[in-house]
Amino acid sequence: MITSSHNEKLKQIRKLRSHRERERSGLFVVEGEDLVAAAQAAQVEPELVLVAGEDVEPELLGAVSTLGSGTRVIGVYRQRWSQPGGQLSVYLHGVGDPGNVGTIVRAAHALCDGPVVLGPGCADPYSPKAVRASMGSVLARPPGRASLGELTGSKLALDGRADATLAEVEVEPPVMICVGAEREGLPPELSGTVDASARIPMRPDGPDSLNVAMAATVALYELGRRMPGHG
Amino acid sequence: MITSSHNEKLKQIRKLRSHRERERSGLFVVEGEDLVAAAQAAQVEPELVLVAGEDVEPELLGAVSTLGSGTRVIGVYRQRWSQPGGQLSVYLHGVGDPGNVGTIVRAAHALCDGPVVLGPGCADPYSPKAVRASMGSVLARPPGRASLGELTGSKLALDGRADATLAEVEVEPPVMICVGAEREGLPPELSGTVDASARIPMRPDGPDSLNVAMAATVALYELGRRMPGHG
Repeated sequence: MITSSHNEKLKQIRKLRSHRERERSGLFVVEGEDLVAAAQAAQVEPELVLVAGEDVEPELLGAVSTLGSGTRVIGVYRQRWSQPGGQLSVYLHGVGDPGNVGTIVRAAHALCDGPVVLGPGCADPYSPKAVRASMGSVLARPPGRASLGELTGSKLALDGRADATLAEVEVEPPVMICVGAEREGLPPELSGTVDASARIPMRPDGPDSLNVAMAATVALYELGRRMPGHG
Repeated sequence: MITSSHNEKLKQIRKLRSHRERERSGLFVVEGEDLVAAAQAAQVEPELVLVAGEDVEPELLGAVSTLGSGTRVIGVYRQRWSQPGGQLSVYLHGVGDPGNVGTIVRAAHALCDGPVVLGPGCADPYSPKAVRASMGSVLARPPGRASLGELTGSKLALDGRADATLAEVEVEPPVMICVGAEREGLPPELSGTVDASARIPMRPDGPDSLNVAMAATVALYELGRRMPGHG
């Protein structure tokens, strides 16, 4: 039973809050019973699991958790990265909010067969906030890392100024839905390299844009719906 | 120029962090230039606006902001509530996360003509987090409050166990999409009162559910897409 906050395992968990330490070690932290159970269901082996009251005093575990006291389990896992692929997947560029990145990883896990591929400027999918938003989907379907130019298949950009709507646009699978930052969209040097662009029809009296995770999810739904046997 | 943290206006802004004070006063706080501009665009008059460096010392404004230092403008506004209505709208039951409530208010503003109607157990749409997630849509399209039994029109429940998919289900407008808490869905006593239920098709190897804001947005997209002249 760990009874000191100077314990090396607790120190490691605390350090893994920092992006630099996650990069250096290739590890990340999973907090809470639901997410540790999700890792188990995905048959991902932990490097370390600490259970409050069994392995460590509950207050000490709460003190290293980003969720605070009441966290009953914390696990440390090795980051995994997928190769881009699948008949339908998502490429993100400059999506800096970890909650949005995690939510899109979860939506892709539900709606398409390929991993979410992270380009430059994206939030770390292994930060505590992203892992939580993914509800464990980062464990079951690890994201990939690439630049858009490295990817093959049809590239479809989500772009509020496109002529075609998502329902109208024609693309041949495999399709990669390309999503940029919420306001800027894809940078011009990339939007010139895609095969097609499409917009989500929105009301003229509404907001300028949807949240980036909403937009990606709607596109996954619409494209998946039109692919026979997908979904 | 306000130079004391004991100033009554600053005290009021600080107090409005509490749900009880928002209920009591009928007011709420809007933080940041973008959201105050959104209020102006929606022609909603503030009760009070404080600009850093003009009306108040910047550090004092930062100290009452939930965003912290760097917040340049804070406004106080009167809460408004819409009557349920529209050809397409959303009813939420037990959606307790303010980020999800705000995100759904934004998505509904973009994708349908009716307000989001909040039933029992929903987060306050006028909390700082919900207002921010709505990106100002709470100002442009204020939510409504009602219980499901008070509402007219076709009620379509989102339910992962439904036989029909969203694309298959037939409902006559006006349609209200009914969404419950993320895991539980609508409580049984309500799911028995709806006109139809539908699910979002998801991969068998994926997660059990989508985030509730994702699910509501996909349903708004699918139903809006099928209504001539909507969107």
